[in-house]
Amino acid sequence: MNQLKSFASDNNSPVHSKVMRAIMEVNKGDAIAYGDDIHTLEAERRFREVFGKDTSVFFMLTGTGANVAALAHITRPYHSIICSDKSHLENDECAAPEKSTGCKIVRIPSNDGKIKKEQIEPLLGSRGFQHHSQPRVISISQSTELGTVYTPEEIRDIARFANENDLYLHMDGARLANAAAGLNCTLAETSKFSGVDVLSFGGTKNGALFAEALVFFNQDLAREFEYTRKQSMQLLSKMRYVSAQFNALFYEDLWLDNARHSNNMASLLAEKLGEIENVRITQKVEANAVFAILPEKAIEMLQRQYFFYIWDRERNEVRWMTSFNTTEQDIDDFVAAIRRSVEDSD
Amino acid sequence: MNQLKSFASDNNSPVHSKVMRAIMEVNKGDAIAYGDDIHTLEAERRFREVFGKDTSVFFMLTGTGANVAALAHITRPYHSIICSDKSHLENDECAAPEKSTGCKIVRIPSNDGKIKKEQIEPLLGSRGFQHHSQPRVISISQSTELGTVYTPEEIRDIARFANENDLYLHMDGARLANAAAGLNCTLAETSKFSGVDVLSFGGTKNGALFAEALVFFNQDLAREFEYTRKQSMQLLSKMRYVSAQFNALFYEDLWLDNARHSNNMASLLAEKLGEIENVRITQKVEANAVFAILPEKAIEMLQRQYFFYIWDRERNEVRWMTSFNTTEQDIDDFVAAIRRSVEDSD
Amino acid sequence: MNQLKSFASDNNSPVHSKVMRAIMEVNKGDAIAYGDDIHTLEAERRFREVFGKDTSVFFMLTGTGANVAALAHITRPYHSIICSDKSHLENDECAAPEKSTGCKIVRIPSNDGKIKKEQIEPLLGSRGFQHHSQPRVISISQSTELGTVYTPEEIRDIARFANENDLYLHMDGARLANAAAGLNCTLAETSKFSGVDVLSFGGTKNGALFAEALVFFNQDLAREFEYTRKQSMQLLSKMRYVSAQFNALFYEDLWLDNARHSNNMASLLAEKLGEIENVRITQKVEANAVFAILPEKAIEMLQRQYFFYIWDRERNEVRWMTSFNTTEQDIDDFVAAIRRSVEDSD
Amino acid sequence: MNQLKSFASDNNSPVHSKVMRAIMEVNKGDAIAYGDDIHTLEAERRFREVFGKDTSVFFMLTGTGANVAALAHITRPYHSIICSDKSHLENDECAAPEKSTGCKIVRIPSNDGKIKKEQIEPLLGSRGFQHHSQPRVISISQSTELGTVYTPEEIRDIARFANENDLYLHMDGARLANAAAGLNCTLAETSKFSGVDVLSFGGTKNGALFAEALVFFNQDLAREFEYTRKQSMQLLSKMRYVSAQFNALFYEDLWLDNARHSNNMASLLAEKLGEIENVRITQKVEANAVFAILPEKAIEMLQRQYFFYIWDRERNEVRWMTSFNTTEQDIDDFVAAIRRSVEDSD
Repeated sequence: MNQLKSFASDNNSPVHSKVMRAIMEVNKGDAIAYGDDIHTLEAERRFREVFGKDTSVFFMLTGTGANVAALAHITRPYHSIICSDKSHLENDECAAPEKSTGCKIVRIPSNDGKIKKEQIEPLLGSRGFQHHSQPRVISISQSTELGTVYTPEEIRDIARFANENDLYLHMDGARLANAAAGLNCTLAETSKFSGVDVLSFGGTKNGALFAEALVFFNQDLAREFEYTRKQSMQLLSKMRYVSAQFNALFYEDLWLDNARHSNNMASLLAEKLGEIENVRITQKVEANAVFAILPEKAIEMLQRQYFFYIWDRERNEVRWMTSFNTTEQDIDDFVAAIRRSVEDSD
Repeated sequence: MNQLKSFASDNNSPVHSKVMRAIMEVNKGDAIAYGDDIHTLEAERRFREVFGKDTSVFFMLTGTGANVAALAHITRPYHSIICSDKSHLENDECAAPEKSTGCKIVRIPSNDGKIKKEQIEPLLGSRGFQHHSQPRVISISQSTELGTVYTPEEIRDIARFANENDLYLHMDGARLANAAAGLNCTLAETSKFSGVDVLSFGGTKNGALFAEALVFFNQDLAREFEYTRKQSMQLLSKMRYVSAQFNALFYEDLWLDNARHSNNMASLLAEKLGEIENVRITQKVEANAVFAILPEKAIEMLQRQYFFYIWDRERNEVRWMTSFNTTEQDIDDFVAAIRRSVEDSD
Repeated sequence: MNQLKSFASDNNSPVHSKVMRAIMEVNKGDAIAYGDDIHTLEAERRFREVFGKDTSVFFMLTGTGANVAALAHITRPYHSIICSDKSHLENDECAAPEKSTGCKIVRIPSNDGKIKKEQIEPLLGSRGFQHHSQPRVISISQSTELGTVYTPEEIRDIARFANENDLYLHMDGARLANAAAGLNCTLAETSKFSGVDVLSFGGTKNGALFAEALVFFNQDLAREFEYTRKQSMQLLSKMRYVSAQFNALFYEDLWLDNARHSNNMASLLAEKLGEIENVRITQKVEANAVFAILPEKAIEMLQRQYFFYIWDRERNEVRWMTSFNTTEQDIDDFVAAIRRSVEDSD
Repeated sequence: MNQLKSFASDNNSPVHSKVMRAIMEVNKGDAIAYGDDIHTLEAERRFREVFGKDTSVFFMLTGTGANVAALAHITRPYHSIICSDKSHLENDECAAPEKSTGCKIVRIPSNDGKIKKEQIEPLLGSRGFQHHSQPRVISISQSTELGTVYTPEEIRDIARFANENDLYLHMDGARLANAAAGLNCTLAETSKFSGVDVLSFGGTKNGALFAEALVFFNQDLAREFEYTRKQSMQLLSKMRYVSAQFNALFYEDLWLDNARHSNNMASLLAEKLGEIENVRITQKVEANAVFAILPEKAIEMLQRQYFFYIWDRERNEVRWMTSFNTTEQDIDDFVAAIRRSVEDSD
């Protein structure tokens, strides 16, 4: 693989220089482990600043870890968890949700990664029947795995349904920053204020080295979560280095700059692709992903130069992710390469 | 808590400057996530250099994660895992081993953290009886949670017994570096060459930010472990930053310098404590821990100045850990404070 | 609910008088518990007689228990289990498979309860990708939950595919007797000789009180299963009473008489329903189930007299099961009631 | 093994004739499966009659199943369960508790199978420390695995402690009938009225074929237990046959006759053993077990005639269980055989 920009995933990016600097700055002397340090206190304070005071936050190590520990904590094994068939939870966590929760994961078909309450409603028919697992959690991704974004209204609609039906609403916010930037709203508006109970909040794809957090807005659910975190093998000893990353991301809204830039690069990519014949964009570009169909042969040629994933081999659909460190030049170069590949594939 | 040196744990230390530099140095441009990058290839090469070519290594996020995923991978839920009653596995992992493996953890009483084959032998009496969980793994810590160290002969003795009885030998090497330094032998001599099947190798307490590895010497056991790692929520996306830490620790034997220094500081502490009346050292100081009994009132006074753990409240026994960044001055200051506390407590 | 014949399920039936007599006959004096008794030895011998000598059998307590323990024993938690979306495994075991195995259950859409290798093939695309659970078992039901039956050729086709692709083939044979009777073949022909690795064999729906067995044809898989059975809470102390039931079912082919009669009653029901307008049979009647669509109002009226399940409320589709104790008179009465309900619902 | 009476376990006994008759009597016509039948309603009524109206009962299939499902339902995986080191839970369930609950099982050393609150108290020291599993349940056996019995005062003492410390009290009552008979009190007095929250109540060792029940006195804990039962593979389809057994045991206090007789036979055995030199009884005979030490050679000789278990091979300690069907003649014959064995072993 060459040294060019990767469009495979926003986790192929390096760590933002300000985040790296923050890591270095806390590297002085001893500090109590496991979160009883001043940097962690500061990070917790910032989370309450961003999301409001009724917020409990626990730092985690991976996005999968945050999702799984959250779900394990708010379910019993005879519950079921409802999500989109395109979700990370369902597809990319090697059945860690099943192993850790014991629950059935119930998939709802979705073209754009979003689910609707109308699709969830029929699943409640199994309520009270002892042979069936009992619906307990709805999990949605914001932004979705397809680069689309729920509007606050859409989330509130699901949250209201959840609330009326004794279901919890979990949000996989590995890219919540991109969603908020795309919606031009705050992080809280697109999560807590829309009725989310528990949020997996990701910093890693937003410029951190490894910074994930589980954020409880429903305070009852947070009770005893420290044990679930430890038992889920998500408790870091040298916690100050995670906390420092969140402090850096929240300082002067670095998270927003990173997300906006990343989204802008996706928009720019999509815009320029519009000029290329034989490239068809398949999803709305509302965050930092572009999904497109192009000729099979063009994909092959392009993959010799750039690293990215084929999303749907049958349809020749690819996924291209942009990141905080994607430049306009990267986009120009990439678009030029796409154009050549498509032309040569004729 | 004041800003003095902590003697609570080697994980209260910062990150060694050379490790931190290595993290910064790999922070350039994009890299494929999840371990398909050149820094990870390099780190894997170094592990094979250190432990010999029949070595498979997987980078993990926490020591608990390494222990638990290892045990989950090499057992079935009806197996039992035999360890010391002083082990981290048994005491400090919030039953993550039970939850992830389903196995019974069988504790062997131990005063110094070490177990002997003679203690394991009677447990095989349950073999073949369908009502009892079936012994499958012996897990030992090197160095132990009590700062003692198994000699290669002691390990070989257990390994031979394991081998003859269809048991695997797992080693929790969160402080393997300290053990090797204490024994004046190589990392391989005190693990692989002594008959260990699977090693949890820790870098975090040796100066890293977070760097843990699972090392399989029994190659059959490594098969499909990548899935267990992912399902155990131990797969980091930006893997190069973990690999860089191992590369730094192995470069010009930084791990050994760190471990030796840490051990020397513990020896120095023990030596100076010998001069104080009413302080009794309770364990051999073979790595970087000092266990001591001192007057209850002295403990109280000392804890106002220094952060450390009371090991056994009934016996007034405390644990003091040294680290790569402990200085002779730190020791002198600490010994002076102990002396004052003991004298004042009379 | 009235005292009429139930068409809800073959488990609403009583115990066949010959089975009950067998239970009484072994009720003499003491016997070693947990299967070390002569009746169990005899039952094991009979299983080897029926299925051939390379057969290991373990008696279980419930059909769910047999399915779940089998799958737990032959998988690791990062594996996935492939089954029909109509299967008992997926729908009616309250996520016991997920809880006990940790595996992802992957559903294949099916109209008649049967799956085809062509549907399984694309699922192998996730092989080797560490983020995805790894396909390991195909589970099929014989007869299916929709009353249809796999031909030996269809099973061999799946078995061959499984064998070529390192997958195990599990069969949920809660109604294997009905399938064999329907196919006019032996129990072994429709399971072991067709390439099945592990069979959940059910006696309960065939006239027993509670008699389920796990039968391993792939002998390697049976190793250590006694521990999985115990850990799955499926080991009965007074085992002779389970064994006696199997001995009765196998004696002079009582199982076959029961299954044939049950199937015949379903055929008779289907035949007579053909004469009623507005009743449409929706599945082939190949075992002891009849699925039919009839007017919603007719269903309501009929349910006041008879107990049975609505299969698909939207389509007004019902499921009617016959049993060894269903009589021609029962069928006549039921058909008359259906006819009246349909007519009255106009 | 010969055809003599077994003294190995009360589960080597046959089914009591009245229980068997009850099974036969419900074998008429169809009945709704899974507990919605009149016999089950009747059995539930009887349980409320025996234990008082605030009682929820669920029929289970095995004693292990009842224990494990109870504990899984009232814990989260980061909790710990405290029991005697002699308990069935700890020793004889092949780690089913660990696998199903994820909890750590914490053993308290006990010579007579009973534990005291003073032994539990120190375990609460781990409360609030996130690295340690959190005590949540105390489980005691009544009668114990050593044939001893807790007095109501002893149970109340533990129950009060549990209540004050946010712990639940579970009772393994596989032999509750023997305990109540021994104490000359009601079943409720030695369980519910003594402060037990959840009771595993066993009928199998009291003359049933298989009849176990989980009885919740703490009604909050019973919520949603039907799903845990199903997911624990403990839900029988033809439930009427289990219910009928309980109905028989409760009818005219058959359970008490059986338990009393069984206890009397143990007392008689103990009394007669007192006359034999070189046989030393090691536990109080308060229920239906006799533990004794006798010469190793005598044990060998005796085992050629009678089936029973050696409890502690090092001490030459054996366990002898009596049952509802043990006769005075059985005892006389057995004592004679013991006498001969002991004499011949000189």
